[in-house]
Amino acid sequence: MAAKGVDAYLQSVHDEWLGEYPPASNRRLEWLTGFSGSAGMVLVLMDKAALFTDGRYTLQARGQVGKEYEILNSADISPQDWLAQQLKPGSKIGYDPKLYTKPMLDKFSAFKTISTDNLIDRLWEGRPSAPATKIFAHDIKYSGESSKEKRDRISHTIRKSGAEAAFIAAPESVCWLLNIRARDVENTPLCLAFAILDKFGKVQLFVDSSRLDNDVRVHMGDDVKICAADNLQAELRIFSQKTMLCDLQATPVYITGLFNEANIKILDAKDPCMLPKAMKNSTEISGMKKAHIRDGVAVVKLLCWLDSQKTVSEIDVVDKLLLFRKQNDLFVEPSFDTIAGSGEHGAIVHYRASRESNRNLQQGELFLLDSGGQYYDGTTDITRTVAIGTPTSEHKDRFTSVLKGHIALATAQFPQGTCGSQLDVLARQYLWQKGLDYDHGTGHGVGCFLGVHEGPQGISKRAGGEPIAPGMVISNEPGYYKSGGYGIRIENLVAVVEKSVGETGRQFFGFETITCAPIDINLIDSSILTDAEKKWLNSYHEWVKSELSPLLDGKEREWLETKCCVVS
Amino acid sequence: MAAKGVDAYLQSVHDEWLGEYPPASNRRLEWLTGFSGSAGMVLVLMDKAALFTDGRYTLQARGQVGKEYEILNSADISPQDWLAQQLKPGSKIGYDPKLYTKPMLDKFSAFKTISTDNLIDRLWEGRPSAPATKIFAHDIKYSGESSKEKRDRISHTIRKSGAEAAFIAAPESVCWLLNIRARDVENTPLCLAFAILDKFGKVQLFVDSSRLDNDVRVHMGDDVKICAADNLQAELRIFSQKTMLCDLQATPVYITGLFNEANIKILDAKDPCMLPKAMKNSTEISGMKKAHIRDGVAVVKLLCWLDSQKTVSEIDVVDKLLLFRKQNDLFVEPSFDTIAGSGEHGAIVHYRASRESNRNLQQGELFLLDSGGQYYDGTTDITRTVAIGTPTSEHKDRFTSVLKGHIALATAQFPQGTCGSQLDVLARQYLWQKGLDYDHGTGHGVGCFLGVHEGPQGISKRAGGEPIAPGMVISNEPGYYKSGGYGIRIENLVAVVEKSVGETGRQFFGFETITCAPIDINLIDSSILTDAEKKWLNSYHEWVKSELSPLLDGKEREWLETKCCVVS
Repeated sequence: MAAKGVDAYLQSVHDEWLGEYPPASNRRLEWLTGFSGSAGMVLVLMDKAALFTDGRYTLQARGQVGKEYEILNSADISPQDWLAQQLKPGSKIGYDPKLYTKPMLDKFSAFKTISTDNLIDRLWEGRPSAPATKIFAHDIKYSGESSKEKRDRISHTIRKSGAEAAFIAAPESVCWLLNIRARDVENTPLCLAFAILDKFGKVQLFVDSSRLDNDVRVHMGDDVKICAADNLQAELRIFSQKTMLCDLQATPVYITGLFNEANIKILDAKDPCMLPKAMKNSTEISGMKKAHIRDGVAVVKLLCWLDSQKTVSEIDVVDKLLLFRKQNDLFVEPSFDTIAGSGEHGAIVHYRASRESNRNLQQGELFLLDSGGQYYDGTTDITRTVAIGTPTSEHKDRFTSVLKGHIALATAQFPQGTCGSQLDVLARQYLWQKGLDYDHGTGHGVGCFLGVHEGPQGISKRAGGEPIAPGMVISNEPGYYKSGGYGIRIENLVAVVEKSVGETGRQFFGFETITCAPIDINLIDSSILTDAEKKWLNSYHEWVKSELSPLLDGKEREWLETKCCVVS
Repeated sequence: MAAKGVDAYLQSVHDEWLGEYPPASNRRLEWLTGFSGSAGMVLVLMDKAALFTDGRYTLQARGQVGKEYEILNSADISPQDWLAQQLKPGSKIGYDPKLYTKPMLDKFSAFKTISTDNLIDRLWEGRPSAPATKIFAHDIKYSGESSKEKRDRISHTIRKSGAEAAFIAAPESVCWLLNIRARDVENTPLCLAFAILDKFGKVQLFVDSSRLDNDVRVHMGDDVKICAADNLQAELRIFSQKTMLCDLQATPVYITGLFNEANIKILDAKDPCMLPKAMKNSTEISGMKKAHIRDGVAVVKLLCWLDSQKTVSEIDVVDKLLLFRKQNDLFVEPSFDTIAGSGEHGAIVHYRASRESNRNLQQGELFLLDSGGQYYDGTTDITRTVAIGTPTSEHKDRFTSVLKGHIALATAQFPQGTCGSQLDVLARQYLWQKGLDYDHGTGHGVGCFLGVHEGPQGISKRAGGEPIAPGMVISNEPGYYKSGGYGIRIENLVAVVEKSVGETGRQFFGFETITCAPIDINLIDSSILTDAEKKWLNSYHEWVKSELSPLLDGKEREWLETKCCVVS
C-alpha cells in the first residue's frame, strides 16, 4: 500500500465474475481474513482494518475473523461512511479494477480511487489455479428452448436498443444463452466466461477452447465463435466506433476500460438475458417441479432417519442428507452449503457446521435445516425447522407466526406490475404484530440448473425492483431468530402463475408452491391459525403425501403419512 | 406559438406555488379547457391538443372538456411519450418558467424546451387579480411550537448542510415555519409567499407588507424581514458567491435562474421544513383529535338528517353538510370540495356535483360522501359510503372487502424505517384476492390547519418514499369503484404512534385512528369478517358513541346509538 501510495485497500468477497461462489483461486477475502460468508468487504488501512458484512453473517464473522479486524454490519454503517470517519476526503483508495463495477466504486466518490494490481495476489502463496472444467451441453429437454431461439430473441432486443452488440458479463447469462454448463465453481454449474452477442445473433465466447469437445461445439452451432479470454482486448477492436450494450451494474470497470481504449460507445442497459432467464418456460417449470419431487423424497428420508437416531451431530445430518440426494436421478451437487443449525446455531442465518462448531442435536431444541440440490432439470432450495423432542410454547408460538406469514405470501394474488417489495409485509405482518422481525429478505429468485440465488426478482423490504412475472421461481422463506437461542425458517419455492383476470381486464398473478416436504406439525399452535390457514396447510400436506408416498417404502412411507396428518 | 417558434406549448394545472388549489387567477388550464381537476397537463400542438390526467380524473375530464382535446390517462401514456409520437426529437416546446421545476422539464429532455412568457395569460381576458388576503397568526396554543423554536431547529439543519441559507419555495412550509396563515386559496389557509431562512434563523418573507398588521409582525418577531415579492432578484444579491439550500423538486426554474444570475451556488436538498412539519407535536395531535370529534358531530348530523329525507340531491347534501360544519367551533372552511357521489357518480373518484351533473339519491344505490374541514386546531378528511335503502349482496361483498383492508391497515404494527409503499398491500389484499383493485393511493399525509394533502409521507404502490414516523397524520382510504355503477371508499385519518419496542430493541410504530364517525353497518357482510376484525369494528363504534353521544341530543343521539350497535 505504501509503495502504491494508497491510504486504504479495498477487497470484497467477489471476484471478476461477481458471483456468490468464487472459485478457491479467487477467495481472496477468505484467504486474508478467514471469513467464508458470501457477502462482505474488507477495508485495510495503514493502522487498522474492518470487515463489513450483513445481518446474515455478522455472528459467523465474529467466529471466523481475528481480533485485528473490526466486524461491522453494513446496515449500521456503510464502508464508505466508516472510511469517511477514518480518512480525510480525497484520500487514496486502492482497488483491483477487475473486481468492481462503476456503481460499486461510485460509493467511494468522496475519495480518490486508485486502480492497481491485486495486492492480495502478491502475498498469496500457494494460490490455487483458476478453474477450467469441461463445458457440457444443457439439453433442450431441460432448457426447453434452443440457444438459437434464445439468441434470436435477445438479438432482437439488441437491435431495438440501437446497439451493435451486447457484452454479457454474467456467467449465468452466458450459460443460459448458450445452453451450456460447467463445474467451475461449487454449488452452481457455471462456466466462468464472458460473451458478446451481436445484433445478428452471433456470439463470441471467451473461454479456453480446450474446455469444449466436439459435441458441445455442435450443440452451440457455427454462430458461436470460441475466443481465448486473453484476446478480449483484440477482439473488441471490431466494435470500434460502434455501440456496445453493457450492464454497468454487472460489468467490472476494467472491461468498460477496454471499451474506452477500443473507442466503443457504451449503452448502459440491463443484462438482456436477465429477465428472459428468470421467466422460465413450461419445460423448465415442469423440470423444476420434477426435481422438487425427487428432492422432497431425500428430505423426507433424512427427517425420518433423524427421528430414529439417538445421538446425531449437525455434520452427521449434512453428510446423510447428501447421501440421500445422491440417490436421486439427475442430481449433480448441492446448490449451496447445507445449513444444519441446532439450538443456538439456528440463529446464525447462514451457519455452516465446521469441525470446531459441530454439536449434537439436543432434546428440547429446534433444528433448522436449509439445503438444496442442483439437478439437470432444476435447482432446489428448502428449509425445514423441526423440534427435537418436545418444543416449548415459545417455540410453537414463533414457529406458527412464521408459518402464518409463509401462508399469507403463498396464497397472495396481485395485479400485473406488482414488485416483491410490495408483498414482503404479508410474510412479516404476524411477527411485526409481536414486535419481532427477521433480518433478511423474504424471497430470492432461483435459476433452473443455475444459481440458487438469481435476479432480477426478489421479495424484500428493499424498494422497487422488477415486477413479479409468470414463470419466475422465488423462495418464500420468512423466519425468526433468537440470538443465542434458536432459529426458525420455513422455506418453499413458488412458481409465479397467472390467476384470474380482473373485472377491468387487469391480469392477476399468484404463486404455486413447488417444494414438496412436510412442515413440522409438532411446532404448530393450531389455535392461532385461521380456518383458511389450516385449509392451506392440510391441502399442502395432502399434496405432499400424494406425490411422495408412491416413491417411499415401509417405515419412511408410514413416517410421512403421520407427518401429513390433518391439523384441525 | 408560431411567433415564438414553438411546436408545442405546455400548460399544467399548477401555478408558481405548485399547490393543489391554485387561486382563480392562476387556473389557466381550467380557463383553457374547462377541466377543474387538481392534477393534469395540457399539450397544445399546432393541429391538436391533449389533456393528461390520472385515474381519479379521467371520467371527470371527459365530462368537462371539449372534443378538441384528446383525454389521456398519464398512467397509460406519459405526456413526453405522447409528444414523442407526435413530434420529431429536438422539436421546440414552449413553457412558462414560473410553473415548472427542473425535474418536470427534464422529462422532456428529448425536445428543446423554450422558456417563454405565459401564452395563456396573453389570451385570458377578465383574468381575476392575484389574491392578497390578510395574513393572520396561527396561535401557539394550536401550533405547539413558536416560530423562533422552529427557525432554530431548521437553521441548525441548514448549518449542518454547509449552506448559508435555505430558499423555502413551498407556501405551506413558509406558513408552518412562521406560524402564519392566510386565505389566498380555497380549502387551504395558505399565504402564497416564498421565504429565505438563513443559517442564523433570520427570515426574509416575500410578501406585500400591506397584508400584515402590527399584531402579526409582533407575532413573527424582529428576525422576520418583510420584502416585496418583486424585490426577490435584488434581495438575492446578498447571497452572491454563497450556497443556497434549495429543493429542486419544489422550486420553479425561474427561481433557480435568479440564483444563477446572482452567482448563488445551489445545494439541492429536501425542503428542510417538510419532515418537521409532517411529524406533528403533541399540541398539534391533540388539536387534530379535537377537530375530528367536532367534525364527527357534523357528519353524524348529516347522516342522521339524510336518513330522514324523502328526496335529496347531491348538492343538497353538500350544502347541508357545510351548514352542520359551520356550527362547529373553530371551523374555517372545507378542506376540499365535498365529493357527494350517488350511484354511478360514486365511481368518479374525485367527483364534484355541478348544476348539470346533480342528481337525487335513489333507493337501492350507494352514496359516497368524502369531505373535510379546516379548523384552527386541525384539518379533517373523512369518507363514508352509505346504502340508500337496501343494498345488494354485491354492494355488501365489495364494501366488506374494502373494510377488511381498512382494518388491516388500521391495526398494522411495523418497525422503524418502514415506508408506506410496504404497507399498501395490507389495504388491497382482500380486493386483490377477488381480482379487484382501486386506481388511487391508499393514504396521503394531512397537515394541521394546512394542506389536506401534504408530503412527504404516503401509502401507495409507488416505491420508496419517506419512512412513516410518529406524529405523522395519514389517511387510510381503500376503495372500490365500478364504472357506471357505484363507488365505495372508507376513509379515516390515523396518527402514527409508538408501539412496543421489539426484542432486539427495535422501535415499532402503529396507527391510532382519529376520525370519529360510524361506518355503515348495513353494508357489512359480517360472515366474511374475522373475530379480530369484528372486535376492531365494535370497539371503534363503541369509541365513536362515547365521544359523540354527549355532544348530540334527541333523535341524533338515538340515531348514532343504533348505528353503533355491536356487529356479531
